[in-house]
Amino acid sequence: TNEFDPSDHPHRRYNPLLDEWVLVSPHRAKRPWQGQTDEPDHSQRPSYDPSCYLCPGNTRINGEQNAQYESVFVFQNDFAALRDDTAPTEQNDPFFTFQVEQGQSRVICFSPDHSKTLPELTNGEREAVVKCWQEQTRDLADEYAWVQVFENKGAMMGCSNPHPHGQVWAQKHLPTQASKKLTNLTRYFEQYQSSFLLDYAKREYEQQERVVCSNDDWLVVVPYWAAWPFETLLLPRFEVASMIELTQPQQASLADIVGQVTVRYDNLFNTSFPYSMGWHSAPNDGKSHPEWGLHAHFFPPLLRSASVRKFMVGYEMMAEAQRDLTPEQAAQRLRAVSAVHYKEQQN
Amino acid sequence: TNEFDPSDHPHRRYNPLLDEWVLVSPHRAKRPWQGQTDEPDHSQRPSYDPSCYLCPGNTRINGEQNAQYESVFVFQNDFAALRDDTAPTEQNDPFFTFQVEQGQSRVICFSPDHSKTLPELTNGEREAVVKCWQEQTRDLADEYAWVQVFENKGAMMGCSNPHPHGQVWAQKHLPTQASKKLTNLTRYFEQYQSSFLLDYAKREYEQQERVVCSNDDWLVVVPYWAAWPFETLLLPRFEVASMIELTQPQQASLADIVGQVTVRYDNLFNTSFPYSMGWHSAPNDGKSHPEWGLHAHFFPPLLRSASVRKFMVGYEMMAEAQRDLTPEQAAQRLRAVSAVHYKEQQN
Ligand SMILES: O=P(O)(O)O[C@H]1O[C@H](CO)[C@@H](O)[C@H](O)[C@H]1O
Ligand SMILES: O=P(O)(O)O[C@H]1O[C@H](CO)[C@@H](O)[C@H](O)[C@H]1O
Repeated sequence: TNEFDPSDHPHRRYNPLLDEWVLVSPHRAKRPWQGQTDEPDHSQRPSYDPSCYLCPGNTRINGEQNAQYESVFVFQNDFAALRDDTAPTEQNDPFFTFQVEQGQSRVICFSPDHSKTLPELTNGEREAVVKCWQEQTRDLADEYAWVQVFENKGAMMGCSNPHPHGQVWAQKHLPTQASKKLTNLTRYFEQYQSSFLLDYAKREYEQQERVVCSNDDWLVVVPYWAAWPFETLLLPRFEVASMIELTQPQQASLADIVGQVTVRYDNLFNTSFPYSMGWHSAPNDGKSHPEWGLHAHFFPPLLRSASVRKFMVGYEMMAEAQRDLTPEQAAQRLRAVSAVHYKEQQN
Repeated sequence: TNEFDPSDHPHRRYNPLLDEWVLVSPHRAKRPWQGQTDEPDHSQRPSYDPSCYLCPGNTRINGEQNAQYESVFVFQNDFAALRDDTAPTEQNDPFFTFQVEQGQSRVICFSPDHSKTLPELTNGEREAVVKCWQEQTRDLADEYAWVQVFENKGAMMGCSNPHPHGQVWAQKHLPTQASKKLTNLTRYFEQYQSSFLLDYAKREYEQQERVVCSNDDWLVVVPYWAAWPFETLLLPRFEVASMIELTQPQQASLADIVGQVTVRYDNLFNTSFPYSMGWHSAPNDGKSHPEWGLHAHFFPPLLRSASVRKFMVGYEMMAEAQRDLTPEQAAQRLRAVSAVHYKEQQN
């Protein structure tokens, strides 16, 4: 029996946002790696690809032509997972419960430049993306309780087109993750009369141990309960419940922090770092949400190199998430890399 | 506005085991597929591979030598995620809650034959695997509240060695999925004085619509709330809470049904079908568990072919699981394939 050392001994950490636990097995990172190792990805794509259905002016599979856009560009997903034309109906039964869902799915092109990704855009170009996220959220909030802004980046995350783009799906009902968060954030607010996420951001900023980067308005941490190896949580350092409320200066500082964290991601393994990221604004239900804080998650799959990923399989699917390095170690590694993108360094 | 058709219109289904929802978007399956298509995998591995660390008599990376085993073979995982030598300690805090976890991780080789997988073993050989699952569960139940028997099959599921094998991880605390199930199964039992899973198995057997295969003791269904395209739930048709309680005839019929479902999986795309599978027996807490029913989940990633998988990314990670074909369509396709393994058909 040894004295407890969080960087060596198996333990579970509690995720208060989702009321779930994660198993941390830091000693496992010591095992020799029998898998492959990789060269940095220095491939260069063209700025315009005539066969890309997201490039300006090109024709999509349904025959529609993209605008000759010069900044961001939004269109309805041609094969939307959500539609708005089914009459609401539902069934309640101990085994067979369903409800019709109405919604919309849209695609957001971040830039006309096929060769770029979020960390390679200028702060001004990224600010246009932030503004677009805000406009879409505002536009869909009138009709839909939940507006999910997200980006799948990289083939490993099911993204078949490297053109920089994200999505926005809106729906009438709160989806599972959102309704869990609402329950847990509300419980904290009732107990402490204060916002969980704002209080958490203050504590992490004081401790610095899990901080990856920050500016006057925003903070990026590897959360104490992170499941993915290099998962991060992007938090405002001021009180704000929804993307809709961000002022112009807050949008500019958000563009900066998104640049900071995604540059560090790319520099970790000298590769265009795959991830899924998404925004959680408060539900649009006409109520005020003092318990809620706007925030974004980045869930990147890579573990050891540009091609060795963490698999959330067997034990993780049946029991609970499991990780091999501690969140503190992950944050330390993300802080240690350069703040300048590796492609810029070579010039 | 159209009248509701579950095989065409977006809707959400409720998972009563986990208290979660899944978004079903069946019209999405109609989109043209722009990804790759594949040839059947007819590669043949040798029965013995001198470089495989799981084959009989071979030496593992830590210097230990495997027995010259002729049926199943169990050993402690050389890089275990769980250990039993850390003194229990914990911390409770709104942001930083943890607890030490004690446990064990073992590897179970299903067969000395490097070239085989579960569907390619004989019923007798599979029965030895079932017996081993039972022995391991019984052995670990004395000390650990939760014994997680599982198998990761295929490179797509993070399995780096094709030698047929699974794992068993045991731990002191109930992991997240187990404690959610305990809550939800208990709620049903308190309301109906009857076992949710047994009642559900009866309803599915009557309806047949989502049944994949069955024998006198066991039933395999694509559950009404399945998240993965060809996810199945393996249920007993008799009352039993834990793997430990299975009689010899029930073990034999279990070996048969595991053969039936895994053969159908392989035949769907003429490939060795990847999946994670795992068993949920009642917790080992000295109490009786009339609310619990023994069951297994199969979570396979494939969607359209041997290499086109479903990605549970962006929307799924941030909001909730989403599927493109209905559980009824998936069950119908699994019923439609041959009950004889495709490799046998070629002989
Ligand atoms: O134990 P293995 O086979 O090395 O590892 C595999 O299964 C484990 C349990 O599901 C996962 O935690 C790993 O991510 C996966 O690669
Ligand atoms: O919408 P896309 O890019 O075709 O599809 C991708 O993102 C979706 C939303 O996260 C997922 O449901 C799909 O599995 C994934 O391949």
